Amino acid sequence: MVKEIKLVQNVLKANERVSEQNRNIFAENQLLAINIIGSPGAGKTTLLERIIQNIVERKAIAVIEGDIYTTRDAQRIEACGVDVVQINTGGGCHLDAPMVQEALTNLDLDELDLLIIENVGNLVCPAAYNLGEDFKMVVMSITEGDDKPEKYPRIFQEAKVLVVTKVDLLKYNQFDMDRFLAEVRGINPGIKVFQISNLTGDGIKELVGWLEEQRNYKREEQICSV
Amino acid sequence: MVKEIKLVQNVLKANERVSEQNRNIFAENQLLAINIIGSPGAGKTTLLERIIQNIVERKAIAVIEGDIYTTRDAQRIEACGVDVVQINTGGGCHLDAPMVQEALTNLDLDELDLLIIENVGNLVCPAAYNLGEDFKMVVMSITEGDDKPEKYPRIFQEAKVLVVTKVDLLKYNQFDMDRFLAEVRGINPGIKVFQISNLTGDGIKELVGWLEEQRNYKREEQICSV
Repeated sequence: MVKEIKLVQNVLKANERVSEQNRNIFAENQLLAINIIGSPGAGKTTLLERIIQNIVERKAIAVIEGDIYTTRDAQRIEACGVDVVQINTGGGCHLDAPMVQEALTNLDLDELDLLIIENVGNLVCPAAYNLGEDFKMVVMSITEGDDKPEKYPRIFQEAKVLVVTKVDLLKYNQFDMDRFLAEVRGINPGIKVFQISNLTGDGIKELVGWLEEQRNYKREEQICSV
Repeated sequence: MVKEIKLVQNVLKANERVSEQNRNIFAENQLLAINIIGSPGAGKTTLLERIIQNIVERKAIAVIEGDIYTTRDAQRIEACGVDVVQINTGGGCHLDAPMVQEALTNLDLDELDLLIIENVGNLVCPAAYNLGEDFKMVVMSITEGDDKPEKYPRIFQEAKVLVVTKVDLLKYNQFDMDRFLAEVRGINPGIKVFQISNLTGDGIKELVGWLEEQRNYKREEQICSV
């Protein structure tokens, strides 16, 4: 028989106050902020390149790149022609709201209407730290296996949108998409799902179309609330 | 220009005292303890199944399974005919030494000479927490990308052995093994590397042969120190 030890982990709440300040900053500036979360190698940075390449109004986009040590991802994103601020956590496993608040001082928020934050590669810890974003986007590649949602449920609960990457590799992997999506929807019935391939480009336009809708909703929300 | 913000993160050291106690327990019981670390979907549990299936003296093996919520991995490992203790962290992103010490009370240590601890799926946090193990094994799949060692250097520094999984997918991925291994060895020149496929079984026997050597070294070490 499998013996089970349950441990209780207190989730730190100190981050929440600053995340509310960030949320207000984003609202005042009519800025849609997205927090992208996924494991190392899920395809977050390549997805971000594809998204930016497919957005026409690129001037109003900025990216905050969370990394532990290098500026590799930031350099790739800068090459796409958008403003990038790099946060190096120096070992830390997630971004938190104060880090993002400091990063914001490097951006001209008046000029922006879309801020994309790429979190540190980690499916676990970033899910627990709100940054003030409008929503979280979880990115998971099919090579990570179809049994992951219930093993790492928090990010699937927290995210508004799931982007399943590397679907071009489906034929070489034992990945049951129906099982996977049923499990995801068992955790979060309302989650929006896109299946994409960064390699072939499949699904990217649909995702970008949806993101543009979210951007427009945010603008309209602001107009209505004035 | 990429703007960079450096943040200092204090690494918690409170774990070290208990990890030393665990180390003593393992030494007293002539038990080789291995701490397996890798991202979700790197192939840790399947690798563990393959290792156990290829070891002849299976009675003397036990496994501690670290998971956030489910007992899925523990059930798979139990089906291989070895003792398993499940640690559910309830949201926590890594195992720590006290969790392992508690788990040990559920095992008959006298009867064991190999303890394999599968950590929570996360390439970042588990690297910072010694559990008292003889060594860490990092497991990374080629689908995670060849740029990861310098982005997540700590686990490559800390590990004695690297198991590169899913090499059967090399032909469908843009993964430069030479670049990857050069970067790994830039961080840790002495790291032992195995390239394996859980699907085809390539490389498993070599890895298991090496593990058996480590097991024998540990037994001999104990004999010499008496």
